[in-house]
Amino acid sequence: MQSISQLQQLINQAISEKQFNENPTELYEPINYLMLLGGKRLRPVLLLMATDLFGGSVLKALDPAVGIELFHNFTLMHDDIMDKAPLRRGKASVHARWNENIAILSGDVMFVEAYTQMIKVDDAILREVLDIFSMTASGVCQGQQIDMNFEHADGVTIPEYIEMIRLKTAMLLGGSLRIGALIGGANAGQAKYLYSFGENLGIAFQLQDDILDVYGDPDKFGKQVGGDILSNKKTFLHIKANEIAEGLDEEELNFWRNPESGSGTEKVEAITAIYNRLGVRQLAEEEMNSYAEKALFALEQIDADAEKKQALRRFAEELLVREN
Amino acid sequence: MQSISQLQQLINQAISEKQFNENPTELYEPINYLMLLGGKRLRPVLLLMATDLFGGSVLKALDPAVGIELFHNFTLMHDDIMDKAPLRRGKASVHARWNENIAILSGDVMFVEAYTQMIKVDDAILREVLDIFSMTASGVCQGQQIDMNFEHADGVTIPEYIEMIRLKTAMLLGGSLRIGALIGGANAGQAKYLYSFGENLGIAFQLQDDILDVYGDPDKFGKQVGGDILSNKKTFLHIKANEIAEGLDEEELNFWRNPESGSGTEKVEAITAIYNRLGVRQLAEEEMNSYAEKALFALEQIDADAEKKQALRRFAEELLVREN
Repeated sequence: MQSISQLQQLINQAISEKQFNENPTELYEPINYLMLLGGKRLRPVLLLMATDLFGGSVLKALDPAVGIELFHNFTLMHDDIMDKAPLRRGKASVHARWNENIAILSGDVMFVEAYTQMIKVDDAILREVLDIFSMTASGVCQGQQIDMNFEHADGVTIPEYIEMIRLKTAMLLGGSLRIGALIGGANAGQAKYLYSFGENLGIAFQLQDDILDVYGDPDKFGKQVGGDILSNKKTFLHIKANEIAEGLDEEELNFWRNPESGSGTEKVEAITAIYNRLGVRQLAEEEMNSYAEKALFALEQIDADAEKKQALRRFAEELLVREN
Repeated sequence: MQSISQLQQLINQAISEKQFNENPTELYEPINYLMLLGGKRLRPVLLLMATDLFGGSVLKALDPAVGIELFHNFTLMHDDIMDKAPLRRGKASVHARWNENIAILSGDVMFVEAYTQMIKVDDAILREVLDIFSMTASGVCQGQQIDMNFEHADGVTIPEYIEMIRLKTAMLLGGSLRIGALIGGANAGQAKYLYSFGENLGIAFQLQDDILDVYGDPDKFGKQVGGDILSNKKTFLHIKANEIAEGLDEEELNFWRNPESGSGTEKVEAITAIYNRLGVRQLAEEEMNSYAEKALFALEQIDADAEKKQALRRFAEELLVREN
């Protein structure tokens, strides 16, 4: 069995070999640019691990794995326009480096390429893979829209938040694993268990992200610590604190969330202090752990090589104790 | 055999039945809105006619036909953002009625829906249909980018222009027919002839559009007559006039194309007078007729019911003598 870093290397090599040299270059250069900015290649790694888990050939799964990464990066290209994000992985985002029109259209053609790579599977599973991929793609779009709606919504609840991150983040991890499992020869039932592993892992992963934003080590966390607090982003911590804060805590929270109140370090420290008093970090960790347990429970149901299952388990655990 | 208007009715009915009621409504309302703005349903009609030509069931082809129309409208939704077009079929475009972010993301999910309807074909032709659809989709994106590049390009040639409209407009007509043919049971060779019919018809159709913009009957032409002239759009007439104008005509063309020179009726009349002196209308009609002939030649190569071929021929001819 290959290690995670060997799988990442395989994927990176496949991505470099799939450089798009077609015309017009305005459409294809941004695809190459974004795909080569790197990243953990989490989704294609999961796809390949799933194929391997059921004894399938990792090399045979490489095109669909690149397809998943193309899809993920297509969503980033369009999300960055919508979020007006100037940076992606520390470099200029596509719409910032070129322009919005190019980021729209290059993203569209990238989406076609994602389908083109994704369908490089055997005829016997083609339709099922397509159904999963399309369902996942719709889910990611729905999650992004709900996330944007939250910006202007009052009273977002924890179940609504969990549903949003399930759609926006978790379905794609689950979908990657489910497609990989089918390529590896798993039956539909086993593939669904692996989907459930990925979906629950994805929710736990996003909750971890919410926690790291506030409590991450500033030296190791890639983004600005407290960024979610500064932008009043409705994370688990934000929503939970809203739910349970009373009296002075509630007043102080409302004060700091008013854009006219102070910002910067002062705001981050004040809100973090409230979070500490309310114990929302612990509540978030409990929620995260409950999803991690659901993920591992689903993994246990799968009838496959114990060592390979163990590797997936370790990978999941490492993802959830990361510091960046 | 069903008449064109019967086919249009079938398609309109299928579209109304496929109203999207999913959440979040921000993503699905714009799809319903745009799909119900109407239009000639040219692409799905061609798809159904192609299925019928080879003796297939039009009802069985209805989902992919709706898929083609979804795809076409997805490209309109994104193109309208890029072109900053406030109107579509006389109503507010999606980005104008909602906002750009919604038009981007609703378009993305519409594209997924297009794939979802498109793959409702028999297993035996699924992969081929997908390949044609994806190739067509990439072509349309490429054509749109090249068209945008033309805005700032000097010295665009007629072959470059024809290639642009082939990608942006004609491939989708060809692709619709080719997919319809496969659904109807045509072999790959016959389906390709029908593709060629559609592609050449599409080029002729676009050239006709260029001519109508200048010489159309203002009472019948849906858009403002002379709109292409006012925006200095690089149409066949524009490029051809550039190529052949000499002396005073050339000077006058350059004068009017300077944004600081007059605009409005004066500009349209002056440039039309130059076009008349140069005879570019006739040259455009000759070019259009040569593509129409290629289209009809390809149609003749097809071994199918003579009456149904005749119906396609008539449909093509009517498209090319339209006044709007």
